[in-house]
Amino acid sequence: MADTDDRNADLRALIRTIPDFPKPGVQFRDITTLLLDSVGFAAAIARMAAGTQGPVDLVAGIEARGFIFAAALAAPLGAGVLLIRKDGKLPGTTIAEDYALEYGTDRIAMHADALVPGQRVLLVDDLIATGGTARAAVRLLRKAGAMVTQAQFLVDLPDLGGADALRADGLAVDSLVAFAGH
Amino acid sequence: MADTDDRNADLRALIRTIPDFPKPGVQFRDITTLLLDSVGFAAAIARMAAGTQGPVDLVAGIEARGFIFAAALAAPLGAGVLLIRKDGKLPGTTIAEDYALEYGTDRIAMHADALVPGQRVLLVDDLIATGGTARAAVRLLRKAGAMVTQAQFLVDLPDLGGADALRADGLAVDSLVAFAGH
Repeated sequence: MADTDDRNADLRALIRTIPDFPKPGVQFRDITTLLLDSVGFAAAIARMAAGTQGPVDLVAGIEARGFIFAAALAAPLGAGVLLIRKDGKLPGTTIAEDYALEYGTDRIAMHADALVPGQRVLLVDDLIATGGTARAAVRLLRKAGAMVTQAQFLVDLPDLGGADALRADGLAVDSLVAFAGH
Repeated sequence: MADTDDRNADLRALIRTIPDFPKPGVQFRDITTLLLDSVGFAAAIARMAAGTQGPVDLVAGIEARGFIFAAALAAPLGAGVLLIRKDGKLPGTTIAEDYALEYGTDRIAMHADALVPGQRVLLVDDLIATGGTARAAVRLLRKAGAMVTQAQFLVDLPDLGGADALRADGLAVDSLVAFAGH
């Protein structure tokens, strides 16, 4: 982890930490400051693309910030973009998957015809924490027949265990910047 | 408009129409089918970039599908990405702007420190209809001191008048595909 952080010290410096958002005690890692920096954003995308193994047919981005990384990775990877949205947002016939929140559950969805079984899908999001949403996205994509073998995140909060849980689900997981704590 | 449509017949064919979403009588123009097509999505981004005049410092994308086009245009334009989000989603200090809905109002926001006054901002979204959100985004960006002189959309619904309203606000407005009706 230390190596990763050193290599990406320039990107780490562009991520702002906002205390007590969205609730007291949470240190929110705000990537919007990195996005505003054209050089930093381009570097992040180039490194995520370089860390991707083999051909990718579709980059799946999780609403809403995941869309940013999926869209920017499409060109360097020569891939299309697949949207994983909150339930009720997609206009066509969808398949959905539930995941646990601290209190209760939430649901994500994708179009049922978004992919052809066997297509190679890279899952991306801005940040991996507990991994609840990302793991639900993997289940959803696999239910549709996708080959999901890797995931890329700008930020990892390794103490929350999401990246390790995804690895246990059989994915190669990469991130550019890690923050201790939560 | 006919010329535009002919030149982009390949893109038009990739946009799916879903009747009665999100409510009866609305023909929803679903761009997710275009996003899934790596060649079509790359062509759309290349044409939007080619239609952009002069240097751009930041591409402002409106939540959520606008993020996709802002992120993908950042590299070809050498620009950063500025997020315009629904109120309450951004962690830092924000400025906000209201806009009218059919019934009631809604509010969009951006980080108060997202731009330096005088920066040249391209506004993008997937679709322009009545233009309520886009016009509020222009007011918001100008309140922050941005120079907002152009907007790009994948889809225009010209009968709803949003593009013309933006032109009256002083913007050059481009879109790749137009659909009659709403």
